[in-house]
Amino acid sequence: MRPVDLIRKKRDGGEHSSEEILSLVTAFTRGAVPDYQMSAWMMAVLWRGLSSAETAALTNAMIRSGSTLDLSDLPGVKVDKHSTGGVGDKTSLILAPIVAAGGLIVPMISGRGLAHTGGTLDKLESMEGFNVNFSPSQFKHVLKAAGCVMAGQTAELVPADKKMYALRDVTGTVESAPLICASIMSKKLAEGIDGLVLDVKTGSGAFMKSLAEAEHLAQMMVATGRQMGKKVVALITDMDQPLGRTVGNSLEVAECLEVLAGSRQPLSEDLRFLALELSAWMFLLGGRVPYIEDGRTLAEEMISNGNALAKFRELCRLQGAADPSRLPAAKSKATFSPATEGFIVRVQCDKVGVANLVLGGGRSKQDDVIDHAVGLELHKKLGDAVKAGEPIATVHYNDPARLPEAMRFLQEAYIIGPQPPCEPRVLVKNVIKAL
Amino acid sequence: MRPVDLIRKKRDGGEHSSEEILSLVTAFTRGAVPDYQMSAWMMAVLWRGLSSAETAALTNAMIRSGSTLDLSDLPGVKVDKHSTGGVGDKTSLILAPIVAAGGLIVPMISGRGLAHTGGTLDKLESMEGFNVNFSPSQFKHVLKAAGCVMAGQTAELVPADKKMYALRDVTGTVESAPLICASIMSKKLAEGIDGLVLDVKTGSGAFMKSLAEAEHLAQMMVATGRQMGKKVVALITDMDQPLGRTVGNSLEVAECLEVLAGSRQPLSEDLRFLALELSAWMFLLGGRVPYIEDGRTLAEEMISNGNALAKFRELCRLQGAADPSRLPAAKSKATFSPATEGFIVRVQCDKVGVANLVLGGGRSKQDDVIDHAVGLELHKKLGDAVKAGEPIATVHYNDPARLPEAMRFLQEAYIIGPQPPCEPRVLVKNVIKAL
Repeated sequence: MRPVDLIRKKRDGGEHSSEEILSLVTAFTRGAVPDYQMSAWMMAVLWRGLSSAETAALTNAMIRSGSTLDLSDLPGVKVDKHSTGGVGDKTSLILAPIVAAGGLIVPMISGRGLAHTGGTLDKLESMEGFNVNFSPSQFKHVLKAAGCVMAGQTAELVPADKKMYALRDVTGTVESAPLICASIMSKKLAEGIDGLVLDVKTGSGAFMKSLAEAEHLAQMMVATGRQMGKKVVALITDMDQPLGRTVGNSLEVAECLEVLAGSRQPLSEDLRFLALELSAWMFLLGGRVPYIEDGRTLAEEMISNGNALAKFRELCRLQGAADPSRLPAAKSKATFSPATEGFIVRVQCDKVGVANLVLGGGRSKQDDVIDHAVGLELHKKLGDAVKAGEPIATVHYNDPARLPEAMRFLQEAYIIGPQPPCEPRVLVKNVIKAL
Repeated sequence: MRPVDLIRKKRDGGEHSSEEILSLVTAFTRGAVPDYQMSAWMMAVLWRGLSSAETAALTNAMIRSGSTLDLSDLPGVKVDKHSTGGVGDKTSLILAPIVAAGGLIVPMISGRGLAHTGGTLDKLESMEGFNVNFSPSQFKHVLKAAGCVMAGQTAELVPADKKMYALRDVTGTVESAPLICASIMSKKLAEGIDGLVLDVKTGSGAFMKSLAEAEHLAQMMVATGRQMGKKVVALITDMDQPLGRTVGNSLEVAECLEVLAGSRQPLSEDLRFLALELSAWMFLLGGRVPYIEDGRTLAEEMISNGNALAKFRELCRLQGAADPSRLPAAKSKATFSPATEGFIVRVQCDKVGVANLVLGGGRSKQDDVIDHAVGLELHKKLGDAVKAGEPIATVHYNDPARLPEAMRFLQEAYIIGPQPPCEPRVLVKNVIKAL
């Protein structure tokens, strides 16, 4: 079938065979199908959707577009976690050392910040000397030594995704659940893992604004993982406010170090809870514990006995950061307070992410250089009372010219009302399993 | 707005402003918007549609992408006709001289055959010496001298359409009514005409298979023309069988010469009727007559008094064909007869067009060279009785190797049943006006 016939088939609501999808992705990766045909096909996919068989075929075709990590010579069960992206979402830095300390292998390939969300690689690079650019053999070397590794994607892994993602970004075809699913699952399954825990964010700071959208994507990813013979579970978690008490690269690393050290700051409790919960599911998927409750106990133990923190320090040393607490600090601080007193009834959470971005903590363009020092220290959570002049956040900044815009985004982000919101907040909204 | 934001807006069902459409089309024409963004936008348009205001804005933006013909120095009212394409559809060659002989100006820019349909330019080039490639000044010279001209599109006219059409062809975005509408209307309105008669074909030999599709497209084109301040009328006409008694370039020109000469061959009556009807509407739109009935009378008069034929000969002479009857003839003839006797209950009309195409009378690829001599002479119409062995068509061919495939298409095209079909056939199914 010619590419135009495949586009027409999907446009008219038809279902592709695995061979059709494989031939399209293979030809696109080697440049035989031009961008203009791929973008038309992806728009047709956004319109008509993909069946679960088509989504699995696409995931598989994308994996086959490059080489995969062969971890079969490393003894032990390999598990990973992937988050769909949020604000203040820093659980990876806590759970990877917990799970590795608990006896599983965590070959974590992470990403950069996207739009208003932060990225694990950007956070890691806050630490002086931390290197995330590894060859496959360097990647395996750290993994073998520490039981975990956190690095960026190599060029050999899923090249189809890199090409497709760059094209989706400029052709309005990002927001397709099956394309998101195949992009995430192909990258994660190319890591050679046995089990995957997905943290699917929903709310004003997530890409999936509604619970229904998030559940739909989660189900698709879990079904795709199952079709590929992997153990996958998805937690649908709240992103209606930043996770923890910091937003911004250095500040977030420092918060993770506190949590790993066993500190119980009230505003970091949601972060600690979610990191432990995700760790517990990784222990369960990896066969390390028979019940989820045992997973929670094991995860807490890795913090209380100091093993997780020691593992994190070991990982940092192996990746080039002798002292993870050597983090850049911003030159100046400012206080953000609400204009009126009352209760925080709603947080437009993506705007909190944008406030950090405009300070320099994220990228507006692909080649922007990140200022790791800037960010926000939060003093209030959703539902909290705030008096006039009382700080909601401390803004850490270097460039005074950038402060007003960040303040404006914060002003828009925090909605103050006369009454506290009545619905109770739930962090883990649903668990979608395929064990 | 960035192109990606325009794509997202249309993808989400939004309505573009005229400025948005103008900036997109302008940037695309000069290469600032890449093909992959335009194809994604066009797929979103195919999905979501365009409002009548958007369609008019697109038409206008496409016209503004190049230069237009300025015919203001030519006295008289300018009218044209456009057909959406059919099999044996040769009315242009008859009506252009009729209408010019009747006192209106007909600046006709025509096209080549597309898929199974024939094209006016290919037919005209059957005549020895006939030139269809004119500069704007040559075009105006012939138009001034004869009152009509029939030529191909120049590079200066609607360059956006050429780029968009080439892209639509390979990205599955041909079948969008607003894109078809804008493509047709931009080319016709760039001619600098006052009125336009549209012949929207429907049936098995047309691109719009159903009456509803044809009427939808017709309404869109009429509304677009009205928004651009032009007089437009659309006739929805039958294309469930070839028009007239010939299919193939030379044969069709010969049939037109017969009709212009006043000959009344029974199997050409539908062609004669439709050519006169379209001429009558052109006379009405051009203000040459007050009522459509007067237009019919005037059109018939131009044939009976020989003025239309004289005008056609004059046009041919001005365009380089000293003798329009000098047409190439095929070397061999074969008879196509049905396998069983009965009645022609259905014609898969596009397959009749393909039969001519495989003989060499059309193009499979853009650079195929046309054999003007080949084609089909038809001896039966829908509903006619055919005895076993009685010819339905005489096949004119040059290459014996191509004959079997053509015969196979004819066999598939003509459906023979035991009873004549009961519904009466109507040639003009509807007239959609905006005078």
